[in-house]
Amino acid sequence: MAVYTDITDAELEAFLSEFDLGAPLVFKGIAEGIQNSNFLLETERGRFILTIYERGVAHEELPYFLNLLRWLAEHGFPSATPVADRHGQLLSSLRGKPAAIVGFLPGLSVRRPTVEHCREAGRGLAWLHQAGAGYPGRRANDLGQAAWAPMFEPLQAAAEGFKPGLAATIKSDLEVLARAWPKDLPSGVIHADLFPDNVFFQNGVFAAAIDFYFACDDFLAYDLAICLNAWCFEPDGSLNVTAARAMVAGYQSLRPLSAAEREALPVLAWGAAMRFFLSRLSDWGMAAAEGAFVRPKNPMEYERKLAVHRAAQGGGGLMLFGEAGQ
Amino acid sequence: MAVYTDITDAELEAFLSEFDLGAPLVFKGIAEGIQNSNFLLETERGRFILTIYERGVAHEELPYFLNLLRWLAEHGFPSATPVADRHGQLLSSLRGKPAAIVGFLPGLSVRRPTVEHCREAGRGLAWLHQAGAGYPGRRANDLGQAAWAPMFEPLQAAAEGFKPGLAATIKSDLEVLARAWPKDLPSGVIHADLFPDNVFFQNGVFAAAIDFYFACDDFLAYDLAICLNAWCFEPDGSLNVTAARAMVAGYQSLRPLSAAEREALPVLAWGAAMRFFLSRLSDWGMAAAEGAFVRPKNPMEYERKLAVHRAAQGGGGLMLFGEAGQ
Repeated sequence: MAVYTDITDAELEAFLSEFDLGAPLVFKGIAEGIQNSNFLLETERGRFILTIYERGVAHEELPYFLNLLRWLAEHGFPSATPVADRHGQLLSSLRGKPAAIVGFLPGLSVRRPTVEHCREAGRGLAWLHQAGAGYPGRRANDLGQAAWAPMFEPLQAAAEGFKPGLAATIKSDLEVLARAWPKDLPSGVIHADLFPDNVFFQNGVFAAAIDFYFACDDFLAYDLAICLNAWCFEPDGSLNVTAARAMVAGYQSLRPLSAAEREALPVLAWGAAMRFFLSRLSDWGMAAAEGAFVRPKNPMEYERKLAVHRAAQGGGGLMLFGEAGQ
Repeated sequence: MAVYTDITDAELEAFLSEFDLGAPLVFKGIAEGIQNSNFLLETERGRFILTIYERGVAHEELPYFLNLLRWLAEHGFPSATPVADRHGQLLSSLRGKPAAIVGFLPGLSVRRPTVEHCREAGRGLAWLHQAGAGYPGRRANDLGQAAWAPMFEPLQAAAEGFKPGLAATIKSDLEVLARAWPKDLPSGVIHADLFPDNVFFQNGVFAAAIDFYFACDDFLAYDLAICLNAWCFEPDGSLNVTAARAMVAGYQSLRPLSAAEREALPVLAWGAAMRFFLSRLSDWGMAAAEGAFVRPKNPMEYERKLAVHRAAQGGGGLMLFGEAGQ
């Protein structure tokens, strides 16, 4: 939850005078997004979300994200459509901070996804990949495989603090991942953070994806690997193979994976677990140092996922392709 | 801003199954209310606010507040209408905490009220007093005049910490107020906290009042005195007499004050300033002790208002009745 910037009625009125949205009827801060301030805004023209970008999103990258949202909307994908001001600009300024208005999306996210939610999320991800094809914006994945070893350097003591011996295990993982990481798979715009709280459903059907502020260029199958980790694990740390197969099947119902992608998926999932383990380990330390109010996510959830993927390399693999017809 | 209780989709579904509101379409935490968790809830039947009562509101008093909201709605006053469950109950339970659903109110609050906003707020307050007449619920004002001296006892050092000599000034004020406090004025249900953030306007017209969790029985004119302090002071600490006159005139357009109420208004405003000075002084100390995240309001804003009212007793009064026709 977060509303870092307080907006007065006079400021809102001045801001809205640059848009063709009519008079404001409702304006409420909403508890969504950790690094930005978000407001529900209703005007004579409809319902919107007003986002004020605080720290955490590099301001020079905002045009990439906003243009991507516009591209996706133009290509029929259900994400928040940015609203241009009278000058055609998607990015405005409020209280000296970057700000944007996007359309309001109805729908509910799920906390404990069922197998069918996983299937729908997989289908939604493939839809996103298809809609994003051809987007001319470019953004390197600054949390991609090449970044992990440097990320871990200053975090070794923190890892040992969680579990003695973990630093050596992670170092070994990083070496294996560097050798095994695919060099050439179908690439494009990925969401890179499509966790359950970033997906809306309506009547059990995929309705929308939100929060594109990690979107970047990378292997499309890596995005699916991120989702497998985020959606298909049980609270006890085990992979729900039924859910994972449903997610892969849902994905393939729109975009069949190539043989190379299928083969790479287990190592991509291992790497995806590494990426979130490392960022959570880093956030954990920073939150402790700053006495932050927002409780960071425990990195050890992803340490357990790493262990599952590590073990699968030596054993029979993840068996992700078990549904009929795959 | 506050969302203290996190609700899963499964919990929401189970909760809503007790209501006749159809399936949920939207559910978002909103940054409103300091002591409760509030959620925007949209279902097939419309838009609502779901409130989970945390600490700060005595749970045994919730029926008084919810029944008052129902009474006001039945008597045409624009406040949030509580929604009864299938058993006719207004008060439910979620995660083991009391919870209620009320109708969603459109409208925007104003940060810096104009003279015309003050006039409309005065009119809205009189409307509330008229609509509340006859409400059978009873609740003593536990922050009323009799409570102030005991409240101040443990806060004397805190007052001195803000300004040397202030404790003696407050003690003297408390004695004068005890002697001068009216004994017999028209009484009834008062809002007791109708600050600008608790009033919604639409096109400059009073549209609704919210946040009734200080409502109680007291002098109706004391409620107007609270509003004069909350709405009609300039940032430099001076009373905007034009705004105050407009507020009184707006109030009297619906409910003319008696001669006794008019005469009492300056001392009621002095006492109203004392009530908020004391509660803010208390909150300030507690927040410091607890390292609270929510920044408390500075009590010295109300120390300046106290000074204005104190000075007015010896001088020409507040001159609140200057508009034509009063």
